[in-house]
Amino acid sequence: MKTVRITLMGFGAVGQGVAKTILSKNEYLKKQGIDLRVVGITDSKGSDINIDGIDLKAVISRKKETGTVATGNMSALDIIRNVDHEIMVDVTPTNIENGEPGLGNMLSAFGAGRHVVTSNKGPLAMRFSELKEAAEDNGLFFRYEATVAGAVPIFNLVHEALAGNTVTGIEGILNGTCNYILTRMAEERMPYELVLKEAQELGIAETDPAYDVEGIDAALKLVIIANSIFGTGATYHDVDVTGITKITPEALELASQNNSVIKLVCEAVDGKLRVAPRLVPKRHPLAVGGTLNVASIQTDLAGRITISGKGAGSIETASSILSDIIYIARHL
Amino acid sequence: MKTVRITLMGFGAVGQGVAKTILSKNEYLKKQGIDLRVVGITDSKGSDINIDGIDLKAVISRKKETGTVATGNMSALDIIRNVDHEIMVDVTPTNIENGEPGLGNMLSAFGAGRHVVTSNKGPLAMRFSELKEAAEDNGLFFRYEATVAGAVPIFNLVHEALAGNTVTGIEGILNGTCNYILTRMAEERMPYELVLKEAQELGIAETDPAYDVEGIDAALKLVIIANSIFGTGATYHDVDVTGITKITPEALELASQNNSVIKLVCEAVDGKLRVAPRLVPKRHPLAVGGTLNVASIQTDLAGRITISGKGAGSIETASSILSDIIYIARHL
Repeated sequence: MKTVRITLMGFGAVGQGVAKTILSKNEYLKKQGIDLRVVGITDSKGSDINIDGIDLKAVISRKKETGTVATGNMSALDIIRNVDHEIMVDVTPTNIENGEPGLGNMLSAFGAGRHVVTSNKGPLAMRFSELKEAAEDNGLFFRYEATVAGAVPIFNLVHEALAGNTVTGIEGILNGTCNYILTRMAEERMPYELVLKEAQELGIAETDPAYDVEGIDAALKLVIIANSIFGTGATYHDVDVTGITKITPEALELASQNNSVIKLVCEAVDGKLRVAPRLVPKRHPLAVGGTLNVASIQTDLAGRITISGKGAGSIETASSILSDIIYIARHL
Repeated sequence: MKTVRITLMGFGAVGQGVAKTILSKNEYLKKQGIDLRVVGITDSKGSDINIDGIDLKAVISRKKETGTVATGNMSALDIIRNVDHEIMVDVTPTNIENGEPGLGNMLSAFGAGRHVVTSNKGPLAMRFSELKEAAEDNGLFFRYEATVAGAVPIFNLVHEALAGNTVTGIEGILNGTCNYILTRMAEERMPYELVLKEAQELGIAETDPAYDVEGIDAALKLVIIANSIFGTGATYHDVDVTGITKITPEALELASQNNSVIKLVCEAVDGKLRVAPRLVPKRHPLAVGGTLNVASIQTDLAGRITISGKGAGSIETASSILSDIIYIARHL
């Protein structure tokens, strides 16, 4: 049995999803020879530490009752530096102003000899090369499957399962909120504003929907893909972005008459990064409906490989985080 | 630089595809730190050996000109036992009577301390558990991505990329020939016999099409999936198989009126293995057209993940074989 100690920075929906998943997969992990212990958890109000492993059930209850995990106030950076552990899991919120606190957490973790697993897009969309170098310089794993397309394992697919292939282009639908809105508009012939309101009521869209509907979220994900797969050193500002707010039911009707749908498509082809509404034939592999995400990867040997699945949800995101943790644990 | 020596048992379309792929990826492999050398090649007429690495260009030419790779007559089993190498790549033809020569090659390889990579379905559909145990008993890798769905990396996806998930069911379209025939019948409203003839002329169907159209090939693949993912110890005889020969244009038309298509669907759900024509809604992820293959994997955490791509072709199959070789090389 291999003991693997992790810290969990952030305890919102994803952090709690990770904790619940680790609890439910305790036996599975033991069968894989992994004794996984969470030795530190933080949220915006404080932290909890136990070098023998935190009682996750108790933390989940405490968070629900008191609004925080805090039993003390040791900072995330102090925990990263001073509490022994193998993997720092950063699930703090995405911040595209300066990438913090995720960026500082990750750089500190690499400095302290911790492997990093994250679902936080901000730092990767801003400073991918620097983070990758910090990991490599210290001989550490840097895994970020959960940053793009939720449960859909795009990075593992390209780097491991399709090893030997050269990727020549990627297209994807990487924002479930936009995909839901466009799917509903097309199916019900409803105007944008009405469907957005419905999506907000269902919790599929945020109260301030700009981050999704203006294509920002999709662009961040595209930048991470481009950096990870093509090593382009791109940032958010290199993406040509158009959102979906100008799409009308009439445009969708016209598309339908041509056996097509309109989708917010991300593409990285010939070194160019673009997020924009595009006509997609109904039978094309990219034409997935509802909140689904999809990535279609063009390669030299395997041809086109397309993968789709749930792009959001706390347990789905936790699935990718857990796979990354297991990957590292298998290589320790 | 890590020197990895392989032998290539079989030099038909797939074997030649592997040789061509290794030639074209020589520089890529060197960049990955892998010096890949083929030290033995066999076909039905003889063999070629060079412990420093065979000139693959010369072998491909010789095969084209003389119909064989032979420069000598050392047998496959002798080469496996007596020529030093790390990985035995079996690409001999699938034989569902007794699994030979692939079965003997693989068991001998494990006995001689060689890792095994294969595209040969026969031995795995008949004696999966025995082969897996032989690999484990000797601490060796057994990789068989190319046996199912050509370039589509189903096994890597489930075992690596979705690690942590429990798979509860799998559905797939795993025979490109049947998928092509059903797609053309539906689109052109042509009868089965006519489309089959067209497929034969295009090289998509064999002169004797029974192996594909009666569902045998799909059933073999389903058995391999069931064994690999569920560890069921199933064989070909445990699959309930119905082919596509009785499907009429009228049935397809009726399906179309219900916004559906008819597909030869493989499913492993609740311990039951079935290959049969089934109605699939046109917008369902399984509804891929042409010769494409698709697998839809139901999991507990990630939900449903669907992957599609080219299910056949010598370079596409070689893609999966190369990925398996690289996987092993990275772990040596």
